[in-house]
Amino acid sequence: MPGKDNSRSGSGLSELALVAQIRSRATRPSAPGLRLGIGDDCALLSPRAGEELAVTTDLSIAGRHFRLDWHPPEAVGHRALARGLSDLAAMGARPLAAFLSLGLPRELTIAAGHRPAWIERFLDGFLALAEAHKTPLAGGDLSESPIAVADIVMVGAVARGHALLRSGARPGDLLYVTGSLGAAAAGLARLAELAGPSRPENTGLRPLRIPRKLELALAPHLYPQPRIAQGRWLVRHKLASAALDLSDGLSTDLAHLCEESGVAAEVDTAAVPLAAAATLAQALNGGEDYELLFTAPASARLPRSISGVPVTGIGRIVRSQRRRPQVTLITQQGREPLLSQGWEHFS
Amino acid sequence: MPGKDNSRSGSGLSELALVAQIRSRATRPSAPGLRLGIGDDCALLSPRAGEELAVTTDLSIAGRHFRLDWHPPEAVGHRALARGLSDLAAMGARPLAAFLSLGLPRELTIAAGHRPAWIERFLDGFLALAEAHKTPLAGGDLSESPIAVADIVMVGAVARGHALLRSGARPGDLLYVTGSLGAAAAGLARLAELAGPSRPENTGLRPLRIPRKLELALAPHLYPQPRIAQGRWLVRHKLASAALDLSDGLSTDLAHLCEESGVAAEVDTAAVPLAAAATLAQALNGGEDYELLFTAPASARLPRSISGVPVTGIGRIVRSQRRRPQVTLITQQGREPLLSQGWEHFS
Repeated sequence: MPGKDNSRSGSGLSELALVAQIRSRATRPSAPGLRLGIGDDCALLSPRAGEELAVTTDLSIAGRHFRLDWHPPEAVGHRALARGLSDLAAMGARPLAAFLSLGLPRELTIAAGHRPAWIERFLDGFLALAEAHKTPLAGGDLSESPIAVADIVMVGAVARGHALLRSGARPGDLLYVTGSLGAAAAGLARLAELAGPSRPENTGLRPLRIPRKLELALAPHLYPQPRIAQGRWLVRHKLASAALDLSDGLSTDLAHLCEESGVAAEVDTAAVPLAAAATLAQALNGGEDYELLFTAPASARLPRSISGVPVTGIGRIVRSQRRRPQVTLITQQGREPLLSQGWEHFS
Repeated sequence: MPGKDNSRSGSGLSELALVAQIRSRATRPSAPGLRLGIGDDCALLSPRAGEELAVTTDLSIAGRHFRLDWHPPEAVGHRALARGLSDLAAMGARPLAAFLSLGLPRELTIAAGHRPAWIERFLDGFLALAEAHKTPLAGGDLSESPIAVADIVMVGAVARGHALLRSGARPGDLLYVTGSLGAAAAGLARLAELAGPSRPENTGLRPLRIPRKLELALAPHLYPQPRIAQGRWLVRHKLASAALDLSDGLSTDLAHLCEESGVAAEVDTAAVPLAAAATLAQALNGGEDYELLFTAPASARLPRSISGVPVTGIGRIVRSQRRRPQVTLITQQGREPLLSQGWEHFS
């Protein structure tokens, strides 16, 4: 198709040239389970005998899930994939393949002088995390769009009948989290401070420059680590009765777990593993920590850590009763309801 | 979570209430292959032994793939799903499950008096086509967004090693299409006429009212029929050497097939099955017909129709040569190159 693709023409890359670029970057030495990647109408995946497939999709929209004027493009790519991987982790699935549907304003596909295009830096972050989890980018879609939007689709595999569900918690089970909580919300607060109050939302495509001394504090927000190894460990050892990932915040996600299991829960405030810079409110209600929240029978012997990530008991599952709150916070002062205060769209 | 969900609060539905509504509408008596649908971190799918999975994603963006002021919401939902189903058809896969990531401006989630919300009508169209293909809506994501965007993810299953690929065409193979070509482009032209030249793009959320006498002419554009049955037939009978679906137009899609197979092609103009109202240009370059384009060895005996849809030979595959165009159109006047003139983003 002479003159149409393969050219960095005029003001941007053509769709075909972009797809070709992504395809060449996404192609990795044969990933197990992926028989056919980018280039046909569908990708073809082959799970092993005895496995079932776990599938999840997560939208990331500029101005809603990230800001072009705040987030480095690498972080936008990393975070988009991390959300999908974290959903697989919550089921205890191993990643088979990622798919990426990307709608972008034309400006974000244009390299300016020596500076790579936004999309190239986005892919840097996306593919680095994919590589770390040996997850091939197997397909997707690409379109020009007035706003930047990325939909990440993850397909994973898990031994049939052994996926961790939200619905398996029973009264008497104990409640655990991996890692520590609140670091992502604390990082986001630092990022907002850095940006200052005067910058209008999403003007300019230039992201903030993150000062080196803030990199560590912002990392949990910008580069969260999905707990794939921990989820798979829980499946292998058949210890967990229910699980989900903390994407919307403990107060909201624990309510989801209780809802799906038809139970209630008690959280011991003193036991909640606060991240270094985080407040209790950030630990309880801050979203995007992407730690696992899971339950296990009281008889189960959980290790102190799984693959280097601490595991902490934070409470217990109790019977659901009409006049009792779904989730109760137990503090030194007594008991109080823990209301969902995590982040919800359309609210 | 008192006061937060399940309420048609203030000006729109909360995300949780919307998800609950979609979940209740999507839940169908157990679909084979779907073990767990909406409500957990992932859906769980169980293909049959000996099957592999086909996965595809397709973005639909307001102002790009549809217009809020032109397309009835039911047609937007139908078309979004049809694009995904058509990719499965192109591989010869049976649909296992659909996933829908939806970003919507708040106005589109609000019912006005007796008029249902845009999203409800979108789902009417989406779920009617899903039902027709026995495809459960198994998950997805939902977010508020400044523009309407829908990413459709399809997972299908096909006998291992038997999927129809773009890369299998060989010199000497004959070239076929299902149905007729150009009707979608002709319908789109009628829709544009109906809208008139003065309406600015995407102002107002009220779609055009389609006059009854135009419904038939617009149907191929508004409600295209993916060729699932025909694709599965081709897999079962092992007749096709390569296939894809006509989403971008014959001139563009045939070039894709030639590219992936490393071959060239000749199309006999007189043989191209023109749709009733379509011009030759619409048949050659108009996108979104969603017919199948496939190749088969000259020795293969193709039926005149598959499941009621005509099959027409339109040309042949030839060896790729440096100084010959990738696709040649043979007319009464002689031979001319058929250049890709289908619809491309970012161009």
